[in-house]
Amino acid sequence: MGESNKKTIIMFSGELDKAMAGLIIANGAAAMGDEVTMFFTFWGLNILRKPEKIKVKKNFLEGMFGWMMPRGAKKLGLSKMNFGGMGAVMMKKIMKDKNVNTLPELISSAQELGVKMVVCTMSMDVMGIKEEELMDGLEFAGVATYLGDADEARVNLFI
Amino acid sequence: MGESNKKTIIMFSGELDKAMAGLIIANGAAAMGDEVTMFFTFWGLNILRKPEKIKVKKNFLEGMFGWMMPRGAKKLGLSKMNFGGMGAVMMKKIMKDKNVNTLPELISSAQELGVKMVVCTMSMDVMGIKEEELMDGLEFAGVATYLGDADEARVNLFI
Amino acid sequence: MGESNKKTIIMFSGELDKAMAGLIIANGAAAMGDEVTMFFTFWGLNILRKPEKIKVKKNFLEGMFGWMMPRGAKKLGLSKMNFGGMGAVMMKKIMKDKNVNTLPELISSAQELGVKMVVCTMSMDVMGIKEEELMDGLEFAGVATYLGDADEARVNLFI
Repeated sequence: MGESNKKTIIMFSGELDKAMAGLIIANGAAAMGDEVTMFFTFWGLNILRKPEKIKVKKNFLEGMFGWMMPRGAKKLGLSKMNFGGMGAVMMKKIMKDKNVNTLPELISSAQELGVKMVVCTMSMDVMGIKEEELMDGLEFAGVATYLGDADEARVNLFI
Repeated sequence: MGESNKKTIIMFSGELDKAMAGLIIANGAAAMGDEVTMFFTFWGLNILRKPEKIKVKKNFLEGMFGWMMPRGAKKLGLSKMNFGGMGAVMMKKIMKDKNVNTLPELISSAQELGVKMVVCTMSMDVMGIKEEELMDGLEFAGVATYLGDADEARVNLFI
Repeated sequence: MGESNKKTIIMFSGELDKAMAGLIIANGAAAMGDEVTMFFTFWGLNILRKPEKIKVKKNFLEGMFGWMMPRGAKKLGLSKMNFGGMGAVMMKKIMKDKNVNTLPELISSAQELGVKMVVCTMSMDVMGIKEEELMDGLEFAGVATYLGDADEARVNLFI
């Protein structure tokens, strides 16, 4: 596959609006036949968390971080005008009214279209997020894997 | 035109400082003869809003979003240290003293230099922003158009 | 050197977490033999400030900006969940416990690996940051230099 067909997106931020932007691009590209890799790092890990509390062993700080961070695509706030979550609720209501795909739907369709979702293992370690807490169908790797993919891609975004 | 002469910039964030960064890069590249496309999406739409209130039909939530979001390049806040707008005022004062181009000037010069400004139609729909509320000289398109341009470009940024 | 071996990273944001992400990528790429250029602009300048107060002539607004912005890699906050600095302290404690390199260590190793660190002179002017206030080993240039490097690179990120 030629270079112009590869794309990488680093998902650093983990807010609803930025997650949607990244996944809309990923879905669009994959639907056009591109090979897309998304690297979830830092706050981006929250996009992939399972909604339920998973029993895993954590130290005190890991537990605190894990408790404070949103658990999954349905719990994310907006990067702006979030107003303690009200902004995200409004945004989701508007999107529903307009028949825009929800974030969980975008994630499912990306996986069906073959978008590779890679989770940064160093971020998991720092954030104290364990594999069991994340949704299925993910790969786990570090910065070297990202660099290898990015070198072969034409479009490389940091979101 | 060869690939190295094309650039795309996604303008997602819509704050004064990030808008300036994007437009300084766009102006610089266009001045050097590059073909630059800027895609305005989500909060980035606010950069292009007309300063005056435009009468358009909106539903309640659209109206609320439209009312809360800044109307145009002169009203944007900073992404950091905004202090309810004081930071942006200070920044603009400093820039004026230093003879740095203002954001409206950067937008005008980008348009004169032939930078293509494309507005994401899905974002318009979600944000409830109508074409009449945006400045002149814009194009309207979706993610497929972005991907087509990005595939031909060397530098693709997400701001 | 071929194009796939060049990378540029614009460091716009200047928070601890984003600075770490950028420097981890830069270190990884440089360790694999790539030619990496980091462009520090706007809030990104704070990453490079010396920790001590340097006596330089500033006007009132420059002085105020300089006083409010963090002085160097050890003083940066998080882009999310900072809680007035507590989040950054917690994050650094966790990273220390996990033997993750600190930000100052990442900056040193990047410089040792030959990562080119360029400071945006226009940002220095606007932020009122003088050369004496920044760490050693930096280059100073404008947007044209960035564009020249980005045109030759494959991976170009905006952080």
